[in-house]
Amino acid sequence: MHLLFWLTPIGAVLSLLFALYLSRTTKKFDEGTELMREIAQAVREGAKAYIKRQYSMVAIFFGIVFVLLLIISLNKMLPIFVPFAFISGGFFSGLSGFIGMTQATDSSARTANAARKSLNSALRVAFAAGGVMGFVVVGLSLIDLSIWFIILNWVYRNLPEAQKIQHITSTMICFGMGASAQALFARVGGGIFTKAADVGADLVGKVEAGIPEDDPRNPAVIADNVGDNVGDVAGMGADLYESYVGSIIATMALAVAAGLGIQGVIIPMVMATVGVISSIIGTFLVQTKEDATQVALLTALRRGIWSASIIVAVVSLFVIRYLLPHNFGIYWAVLAGLGSGVFIGFSTEFFTSDHYKPTRSISDASRTGPATVILQGISVGMLSTAPPVLAVAVAILAAFYLSGGASHPELGLFGVAISAVGMLSTLGITLATDAYGPVADNAGGNAQMAKLPEEVRKRTDALDALGNTTAATGKGFAIGSAALTALALIAAYQDQIRLFGEKLDLRIVNPPVMIGLFIGAMMPFAFCSQTIKAVGQAAGLIVVEVRRQFKEIKGLMDGKAKPDYARAVHICTVAAQHQMIVPSLMAVIVPIVVGILLGPSAVVGLLAGALVCGFTVALMMANSGGAWDNAKKYIEKGAFGGKGSFEHKAAVVGDTVGDPFKDTAGPSLNILIKLMSTSSITLAGFVLKMALFK
Amino acid sequence: MHLLFWLTPIGAVLSLLFALYLSRTTKKFDEGTELMREIAQAVREGAKAYIKRQYSMVAIFFGIVFVLLLIISLNKMLPIFVPFAFISGGFFSGLSGFIGMTQATDSSARTANAARKSLNSALRVAFAAGGVMGFVVVGLSLIDLSIWFIILNWVYRNLPEAQKIQHITSTMICFGMGASAQALFARVGGGIFTKAADVGADLVGKVEAGIPEDDPRNPAVIADNVGDNVGDVAGMGADLYESYVGSIIATMALAVAAGLGIQGVIIPMVMATVGVISSIIGTFLVQTKEDATQVALLTALRRGIWSASIIVAVVSLFVIRYLLPHNFGIYWAVLAGLGSGVFIGFSTEFFTSDHYKPTRSISDASRTGPATVILQGISVGMLSTAPPVLAVAVAILAAFYLSGGASHPELGLFGVAISAVGMLSTLGITLATDAYGPVADNAGGNAQMAKLPEEVRKRTDALDALGNTTAATGKGFAIGSAALTALALIAAYQDQIRLFGEKLDLRIVNPPVMIGLFIGAMMPFAFCSQTIKAVGQAAGLIVVEVRRQFKEIKGLMDGKAKPDYARAVHICTVAAQHQMIVPSLMAVIVPIVVGILLGPSAVVGLLAGALVCGFTVALMMANSGGAWDNAKKYIEKGAFGGKGSFEHKAAVVGDTVGDPFKDTAGPSLNILIKLMSTSSITLAGFVLKMALFK
Repeated sequence: MHLLFWLTPIGAVLSLLFALYLSRTTKKFDEGTELMREIAQAVREGAKAYIKRQYSMVAIFFGIVFVLLLIISLNKMLPIFVPFAFISGGFFSGLSGFIGMTQATDSSARTANAARKSLNSALRVAFAAGGVMGFVVVGLSLIDLSIWFIILNWVYRNLPEAQKIQHITSTMICFGMGASAQALFARVGGGIFTKAADVGADLVGKVEAGIPEDDPRNPAVIADNVGDNVGDVAGMGADLYESYVGSIIATMALAVAAGLGIQGVIIPMVMATVGVISSIIGTFLVQTKEDATQVALLTALRRGIWSASIIVAVVSLFVIRYLLPHNFGIYWAVLAGLGSGVFIGFSTEFFTSDHYKPTRSISDASRTGPATVILQGISVGMLSTAPPVLAVAVAILAAFYLSGGASHPELGLFGVAISAVGMLSTLGITLATDAYGPVADNAGGNAQMAKLPEEVRKRTDALDALGNTTAATGKGFAIGSAALTALALIAAYQDQIRLFGEKLDLRIVNPPVMIGLFIGAMMPFAFCSQTIKAVGQAAGLIVVEVRRQFKEIKGLMDGKAKPDYARAVHICTVAAQHQMIVPSLMAVIVPIVVGILLGPSAVVGLLAGALVCGFTVALMMANSGGAWDNAKKYIEKGAFGGKGSFEHKAAVVGDTVGDPFKDTAGPSLNILIKLMSTSSITLAGFVLKMALFK
Repeated sequence: MHLLFWLTPIGAVLSLLFALYLSRTTKKFDEGTELMREIAQAVREGAKAYIKRQYSMVAIFFGIVFVLLLIISLNKMLPIFVPFAFISGGFFSGLSGFIGMTQATDSSARTANAARKSLNSALRVAFAAGGVMGFVVVGLSLIDLSIWFIILNWVYRNLPEAQKIQHITSTMICFGMGASAQALFARVGGGIFTKAADVGADLVGKVEAGIPEDDPRNPAVIADNVGDNVGDVAGMGADLYESYVGSIIATMALAVAAGLGIQGVIIPMVMATVGVISSIIGTFLVQTKEDATQVALLTALRRGIWSASIIVAVVSLFVIRYLLPHNFGIYWAVLAGLGSGVFIGFSTEFFTSDHYKPTRSISDASRTGPATVILQGISVGMLSTAPPVLAVAVAILAAFYLSGGASHPELGLFGVAISAVGMLSTLGITLATDAYGPVADNAGGNAQMAKLPEEVRKRTDALDALGNTTAATGKGFAIGSAALTALALIAAYQDQIRLFGEKLDLRIVNPPVMIGLFIGAMMPFAFCSQTIKAVGQAAGLIVVEVRRQFKEIKGLMDGKAKPDYARAVHICTVAAQHQMIVPSLMAVIVPIVVGILLGPSAVVGLLAGALVCGFTVALMMANSGGAWDNAKKYIEKGAFGGKGSFEHKAAVVGDTVGDPFKDTAGPSLNILIKLMSTSSITLAGFVLKMALFK
């Protein structure tokens, strides 16, 4: 085994220790008044109850798939370790989400309490809480990768080097399927829960009863706060675990085809370790004075992120030069990936921030009512797909050709894969800037319900807004790397099929490929249809429940009686669990069916169609949703009549439509695409054997 | 020249004579009261004014492109006839729209007047008016095709047979570019006009002022009626001219590559002629008693459509057996196409009719307000993409393999192309059932403004509803054939590139192809973004104008003063003209830029990405829009509180959002895809020469 490999478990342990340190930091802060503790406790219990139920259901799915995979492996159509790798990927992905969520629910009251003192204190708690999630995701990923690498390296110790690497990587790539499946369930289930509660609470509370957001009289208010934790935090954790692991294992698999040997295989893991250390340094750089303004805080956050990225860019140069001296072009591929990620981040900010024309045009459209708000938002979202698609196109082209793809296509594809690793290497800190947003949001809810002075709420809102700005870069990396990783997985699928000695006719005009493209392009729509409908239906149940409580519980509106919060949490839980099954299963079943009916070439078409169309739809959904949200906030700041005006009501409709777009359907699409790819890879041997038509 | 070719000009003349006969039939009906004539005259003038302006602008575009093409041909990068073929395609497409629209504006008052007598009389006028459009489109297409075929056959008379056919078809396929460009301008410009007027009129009139639709006090009411004619009629005429011609020329071009010789080349034209005769017979079968009920009329219409289709199916059997005795499998391809068209029609009806669950679920969502109406509508629209995509997938597979594509792929692609011809062959009658809808709609507007008794309006509404039902089959054929034709055009592009001796690497994993796919998938979104924004902005201008007139013109609301209708028409005209340019140019410029920068393989990726993603988005937009419209109508019939209720207001928001979806952005997408393909084919030689990277 290459000596540098041992950096990976070291990086993993470092990352987890740092997460522990950050967690201890947050514990030093006080949870505040009795009421604040009580509220935090209610949210915590709701979130744990949901997660328990979610994981029990997912465990059934994993159990069934495990048995099926085991049967397939016992029939020699899969390496025997695959079913276990599948389970471990799912387990660690779920664990990442769980730890991140526990930390977040433990930190909301603390953040609110710190916000009573200053903006900077609140940031310290929330950012540390976000950091716990970031470093846990990275640490657990690297632990899982290291363990499997060590085990498989030992198991195949008697094989010649080339064959050994081949066996290791083709088993490890299958463990992406477990991570993706867990992530999809978490995103879809959590996404349905959070948006059903949010939409339901807003529709009756804000729109009908005219009470403010997070008002404790609203029976869905706890569910709404629980939702932020199970959707935005636990879902995000599982999701990014999947992205991170996915990008690394896809690169490892392609290293073999590119003939880069063990050096090529360990390079993504080494780069990830470099990223851990850079992220830790970056985190320490997020420091300001106690009386810092919002601008100073923004500068501090940006300093942290940028320093980490620059360190990675510089150190990777030496790593690649040392490990792959003859293929230094790969370094340019890494830079191309980083560049496109930064560009996507800027583009996202341009389309969704109220500082720029697109979001303001939505606010402006509110003057003619909700219909024009919707139309303008969809128009903005659709247009916003162009710059990221072009950025990814340029990144693919640059990564492929700069790594030498013109003469050696496999090397080019390895370049594409590793550019995604570069983008995700600083996940520790970029995820921290993303994940602290929901913590701040929850702190705001806590402050509102605990009737803290208005300035506290203002500080948590400022924190939340700050998070939206800094998170843009991290989101750009997550989006860009998802597209590149998915492409790498398609290439890996192709290699896998070739290993079985099967020839593929991948020309677009080959009817199975074309049909695959058609069905693939349709998949994101069928999937989003399910998830959006689920949110609508679950929100409808909440609306009915909240209306019922307003009507039946006497003295509720005067604050003399308490609503039945638990009932709303329960309704969301049941609905989310019930509705997440069909869309998640689609991702696994469709590639198998297409493969059996139309052969592996059609599967490649399917994956490519789902990738290009799903990527675009995901961008549209995320950006429409973000722009509607901020267009509403822009009006709330006083533009176009301000809060309560006709314009504001129209903008709230846009925001409500955008909620499931940006927090349920949109973010699940990237996982959908990757789960389709990883399932296809895992089951390639099985599908080939069953195929009616090759 | 093959004797059977001469059926084509005969069919063309027959079709045009029959259109003349139908037009004469409508002239026998009276235009009604003075007021009715006056209103019809105002609409007619508005429509003519718009079309004049539209065609002047388009003429500039055609002039510029003509000169560019001429320069390119003089440099030997194109056959010298291509610029002229381009102009003729555009001219006849525009002429089809113009004649159809003139007939429609001449028939609205007549239909309204006939509706004073009976439902059946009104149907006779409106259906005859729709038939004029149907048979004019078919007749002009076949005239244009015949003339060019005769000319080119004479020009190349000295070449050996095989080479002659090659030259003829590769010139003729370029004339699709002219037809597509004209159709795109007509659909986009007309679509922006009609929906800006409609949305603008509704937002102030119905929602703010609370006056009914088509109320003469609304200053935008004439513009709204003009819009139906320039968008739904003229736009649809140009569009279907393009589809019809496109499917025939694509098939002709592929016949050469498939080695089917002159028999293969003329077969689509002969089948079209068979379709003309079947459609005429079918039209005569649309007969009922004077006091017929709505159900009896529906039966009569269906009898007409189905008889025509069955005649085509039977006669094609003999035509194919006679012309291509060794390739009878092609007949099964035709049947596969017809089958999938019928299936798509049913699927469309299922998702957009208020008899079924999807549309009713949208009405139901109105109970929780506009946001849930939007979410449910989008969810329904997204799900509705699945059955048509699967139907097209099955049709491609069946058409390809049944025609012998397994051993001879070119023959399989010819089969795919001809299945689209089969679907469109009965366009004469299916377009009649589609085009009479707007006539009935306008008749309703006329009746409302002319203050005719309410039962007249009820009859025109019934007619309109009837049209929506029967049009489903025609729409299914139009949608399905667009996908198949676009695929055939991609294959034709590939052949064109091969003629230049260039080799293509069309494997999906080839980076230029993948990048083409990405950009192609993004194109429909960028395009829809432009058109939706245009409608929103133009509607905003109308809203401001209508509000101004309500405020400034004294006595308007009491009916004592007349609004300034012409001003609203003018605003829509200017806005539509202004806004149609960028999206239309995109379709021509993007393939050229991609071709020059990334080479022809990337262009194939681009076209395939635009096809699969555009097809899906178009389905979603059309069906969401249709379902919102009918969900609103369902509530107006009395469900969920009926007209004026909270639920109704929510449903109106859905309908307003759906308007540009289903009548502007959605229908333009099919043309966008084909214009991208035809421009790529036409400019293949030029792009190859300029390409930086092959």
